Amino acid sequence: MKFTLPKSILTEVIGKIGRLMSSKPDIPVLRGIHVLVQENCIVFTISDGTESLIHTVPVSVDNGVIVLDCGASVFSKDAFNISKKLKGDITFEVDGSKLTVSQNKTSLEFSTIEADEYPKLAIENTTRAITFEGKDFEDIVKKTAYCASDSQARPILTGVNMNFGEINSFVCTDSHRLAKVQLGSSTEEMNITVPANLLEHAIKSFDLTQSVLVFPSSSQIALANGKTILTSRLLEGNYPDTNRLIPTEFKGELIVQRQELVDTLELLSSMSETGVIKLKVNSLFIELSAVSTISKGLNEIAYESWTGQDGFTISLSSKYLLHAINAFSSNSVKLEFVESMRPFIVTPVTDQEVNEVHLILPVRS
Amino acid sequence: MKFTLPKSILTEVIGKIGRLMSSKPDIPVLRGIHVLVQENCIVFTISDGTESLIHTVPVSVDNGVIVLDCGASVFSKDAFNISKKLKGDITFEVDGSKLTVSQNKTSLEFSTIEADEYPKLAIENTTRAITFEGKDFEDIVKKTAYCASDSQARPILTGVNMNFGEINSFVCTDSHRLAKVQLGSSTEEMNITVPANLLEHAIKSFDLTQSVLVFPSSSQIALANGKTILTSRLLEGNYPDTNRLIPTEFKGELIVQRQELVDTLELLSSMSETGVIKLKVNSLFIELSAVSTISKGLNEIAYESWTGQDGFTISLSSKYLLHAINAFSSNSVKLEFVESMRPFIVTPVTDQEVNEVHLILPVRS
Repeated sequence: MKFTLPKSILTEVIGKIGRLMSSKPDIPVLRGIHVLVQENCIVFTISDGTESLIHTVPVSVDNGVIVLDCGASVFSKDAFNISKKLKGDITFEVDGSKLTVSQNKTSLEFSTIEADEYPKLAIENTTRAITFEGKDFEDIVKKTAYCASDSQARPILTGVNMNFGEINSFVCTDSHRLAKVQLGSSTEEMNITVPANLLEHAIKSFDLTQSVLVFPSSSQIALANGKTILTSRLLEGNYPDTNRLIPTEFKGELIVQRQELVDTLELLSSMSETGVIKLKVNSLFIELSAVSTISKGLNEIAYESWTGQDGFTISLSSKYLLHAINAFSSNSVKLEFVESMRPFIVTPVTDQEVNEVHLILPVRS
Repeated sequence: MKFTLPKSILTEVIGKIGRLMSSKPDIPVLRGIHVLVQENCIVFTISDGTESLIHTVPVSVDNGVIVLDCGASVFSKDAFNISKKLKGDITFEVDGSKLTVSQNKTSLEFSTIEADEYPKLAIENTTRAITFEGKDFEDIVKKTAYCASDSQARPILTGVNMNFGEINSFVCTDSHRLAKVQLGSSTEEMNITVPANLLEHAIKSFDLTQSVLVFPSSSQIALANGKTILTSRLLEGNYPDTNRLIPTEFKGELIVQRQELVDTLELLSSMSETGVIKLKVNSLFIELSAVSTISKGLNEIAYESWTGQDGFTISLSSKYLLHAINAFSSNSVKLEFVESMRPFIVTPVTDQEVNEVHLILPVRS
């Protein structure tokens, strides 16, 4: 097996596989990168045992990739990390279990692992694919995945529930807050829960000017973007029914400048150990305050409109509210309240149709 | 006590005191910042118990600093870290043990510590000052302090020895390598050993377009730059006599492109767990190699000149050689060898007079 990559292509490959390179899987062979050299393409596969990424580099005169001898091998991460310091065209040659990386007068030798020892990636056959514009896919992920639970106490809550059908809907909750986005429709009906991590990794490593194809199967999901495929197991179990959680009738609607609210929440959250903020709506302005054992912060900001009662007060997690409104791009945001101890709703204020809703439970104070 | 700082001045103050703010001194009061407000200036003092920094802000119409009420207090680090998120002109007012930081509609309250509890900084009176151009001071530090020992086994080796006299000389060694710079002369004779950390902190926080004044006394050093003073204890004990260590006769002089040597050392050092590199000078080129249990690296680079024997071989720490030549700005470097097991000398190749020498002990291989 022997092939030559220009430095720019090696950098591209490392860019794609790089995040998974920092993982330390239990199975030693998974600490390497499977390299399959074929006449028309070179396929790099990396896995952390849960998530796998397959990146294909075509062989062409245009991109300068040359295949001199086909074959398969498993390279160490060092082979990539150290070779990327070379310049120009870099040649990789495997002889037995020895990989020689050479460029001009430099030669680096690494040991390899037999390709046979690398676990087969069982990608389930599926013909069903749902296609998203890269931008839409990013939007769905950014507006839902932030609500996923970090804890493995209820594994299903570490995922984003995707319901494909007449209206595709994407829901995520950690039981303290919830986000829901509705976008497009599918001819097929399907309900799957995808690890939020996988989705966040996808938007980091994908080229979002290109479309994203989602291939769901009974236990697995594959996300394809350009020449990159990311796969993972689906989360098992029933996702909680969240429809009844979202209130539809409100007693007060508050519209406020988004950036002003962000700045105030960021300032005051550092004044309280718990990050809990008290929000009080007066007849003329909003009073936001935070108290800790040793400090106290207070800020008044103006609102654009308020339909509720004077003096309405609610205590909330500044972190949760910031997570929600940081995902918005609108100039103003709308907060809709029922009562001080009932969940409230946050949405962006925009001319376009709003297809998302963010729900936050208040804090007992 | 009450004063107003424009945000730009607050940012400047935090920039100066910032590094010491990350320290966690054992004495609680030292975790705060002493603020002394006088009619014509505000003095900020911070200390980690060993090193202290005093920064003075003048009160003037030009810089927008306003003093409304004089006094002294100790502010918490949070008071600075959180207040820097405010914009515009920020007012600090102390009433009893309560500090209120306010700007427009925002008010933040912090508790303070009595100024009396803050230890007095005993700055010894000294009239002797040695003045350096900022650039020269930076040069001395960069070219010596890198050789200081990290270990407290022999505390004196954690410092840079400064010998002022007919020729000022600055020496630093951790017993594996040594750097020596000679620059200027002093009318007074003095020999002090200054913590290398202090010097490295100084070049980071000082404005090096301005001069640096060194005030040594029997047990202390103060470094003054603009409106900032940095002080520390001197290291006690006799600095080892290093003059006999530096060889003066050599059997081989090698001149090589600096950047090419840097690139090769950086590449090969990652191929060996120990960072040890074997350097072999052939009749036509230099062969550099590194070996680990699982990998092997080899590179050939050309030299500009070589006066020694064909096949001369030496094993060395790539880290130590990189530290030395990374401090150079010359295009070429000169390595002078006696024997494979004797220390060798590294110097920059330049048209100007060379006032520095870097010595490295080889590695037994």
